[in-house]
Amino acid sequence: MTAPHRILVVGSVALDSIRTPYGEVTDALGGSASYFSFSASHFAPVSVVAVVGDDFPQEHRDKFDSRGVDLSGLETAKGGTFRWRGEYMAELGHAHTLETQLNVFADFHPKVGADHSKAPFVFLANIDPELQLEVLDQIKRPMLTLSDTMNYWIARKPDRVFEVLRRVDVALLNEEEARALAGETHLAKAAEKLLEQGANAVIIKKGEHGALYHSREERFITPAYPVTALTDPTGAGDSFAGGFIGMLARFGRTDGEALRQAMACGTAMASLAIESFSPARLIETETTEIEGRVRSLHGMVHYDLFPMF
Amino acid sequence: MTAPHRILVVGSVALDSIRTPYGEVTDALGGSASYFSFSASHFAPVSVVAVVGDDFPQEHRDKFDSRGVDLSGLETAKGGTFRWRGEYMAELGHAHTLETQLNVFADFHPKVGADHSKAPFVFLANIDPELQLEVLDQIKRPMLTLSDTMNYWIARKPDRVFEVLRRVDVALLNEEEARALAGETHLAKAAEKLLEQGANAVIIKKGEHGALYHSREERFITPAYPVTALTDPTGAGDSFAGGFIGMLARFGRTDGEALRQAMACGTAMASLAIESFSPARLIETETTEIEGRVRSLHGMVHYDLFPMF
Repeated sequence: MTAPHRILVVGSVALDSIRTPYGEVTDALGGSASYFSFSASHFAPVSVVAVVGDDFPQEHRDKFDSRGVDLSGLETAKGGTFRWRGEYMAELGHAHTLETQLNVFADFHPKVGADHSKAPFVFLANIDPELQLEVLDQIKRPMLTLSDTMNYWIARKPDRVFEVLRRVDVALLNEEEARALAGETHLAKAAEKLLEQGANAVIIKKGEHGALYHSREERFITPAYPVTALTDPTGAGDSFAGGFIGMLARFGRTDGEALRQAMACGTAMASLAIESFSPARLIETETTEIEGRVRSLHGMVHYDLFPMF
Repeated sequence: MTAPHRILVVGSVALDSIRTPYGEVTDALGGSASYFSFSASHFAPVSVVAVVGDDFPQEHRDKFDSRGVDLSGLETAKGGTFRWRGEYMAELGHAHTLETQLNVFADFHPKVGADHSKAPFVFLANIDPELQLEVLDQIKRPMLTLSDTMNYWIARKPDRVFEVLRRVDVALLNEEEARALAGETHLAKAAEKLLEQGANAVIIKKGEHGALYHSREERFITPAYPVTALTDPTGAGDSFAGGFIGMLARFGRTDGEALRQAMACGTAMASLAIESFSPARLIETETTEIEGRVRSLHGMVHYDLFPMF
């Protein structure tokens, strides 16, 4: 095996205050880039480009250090760190945002340094699609780019979201986002429409119902890992992205077989993320546990087809 | 390959009047035993035990004949055939029952003849659990029994439903039924609870999100076949049951590998059923089409796991 390839993530590092039926946390480490990098760090080296305020605690930086995540691209700006306050009701389906303080994130323009611009695997986490395009302009010949987005941007800047979709290799969407962007309720048809409109490949996350990968060549479905200790769904999508890219970066592969196993890795990492508040489980988990969940997922879908008629 | 084994189904043969956003039909052939037997008939010989009224049209009998389904156990009673009138809204998720006329079905007690009592594969379609128990008392050493039920019986006769669950090899439930019966929203936990309460194995159908099989030994998940020509969801569950048992009866197998492929067969047959009103597609389809869908489903989940760490 060759050395794992470096991954660049551009997104948010935040302080989250979250309440779920299972408890609550205040100013916990959050943000898309955090969940993503802790998840991906088990597979390959990760560099973060993001911004925090001068109130960002050292103990949170130490967590990144403990997983070997490169924070040389993490700007510290004068002001407060991006803060999000939200809660989940009994069903844990959707977050209700109670408060968002953009703070230093309001004026953020990602600066990708010379070193980071050569990272072969790139994740554009859920930020303004204009910023995602700025990042795409700064990176050089990546092997695979993955984007995330949210309904907020789909409603306000659909053209920009589509521009990102056409420029990245794979676009990550949840069910509602895929439906909204494609203007089509039926998921399989929504995926087709997004490809017709120029997307190269889409991953549609269906929460407890798993995820599907759809490109012109490949159609793959993975169930969710059946988590029984669900605690806080925050960061599930970014953790999925971390496992997905992490696996591909580990082997420097982007072929169909690798993509399928990468979907299982994403699923396994998402299942770990939601078993604790903030990325605690993602930080503590070990490769044996990750491999165990991937193996268990594989066991739940695998069989050898024999001819019937 | 040995000769396929005979399947016995006890359920309803009905006249359905259905409206969906894609059209409507009046007094079309319906009922759980109908959908089931057309589906299963592509895999193995099927015998029906049910009742119709003296108004049941010959043209519907001819359809069973065309698929070689044995109607020697179909009673004809004085009175009207069981009629159901329902409609589906845009989302096609749930049927709204507009009218149910039990007619001759009100006094039905299934009589399983000596020949039929030896059928090695048995499907107890959704009828009063008391009647399902009567059938179980009449059958002799089957290889596999499968039951279906509905919320109506779970609400009214939960103890009887549980008694059926404990006596059959596999119990088929949809998401809502599994949640209601287990008293647990989380599906994986609901499945565990049903096993704890004595079920031997459960299949939970999740509609467009596929289905899962859960026993003490096996845990298997299959996605739904991505249907784009959805027309009428009626009979999807019974068609699933037909493909599932059909495949097992064809080979006389009940082992884990066979169960997995049987889940794919059930999924394929359900996808065909919902592409037309009444069991029209199920009657017309051919083994090449069925095998094609099963192969395509397998292709959507299959990969060879390689070690990562």
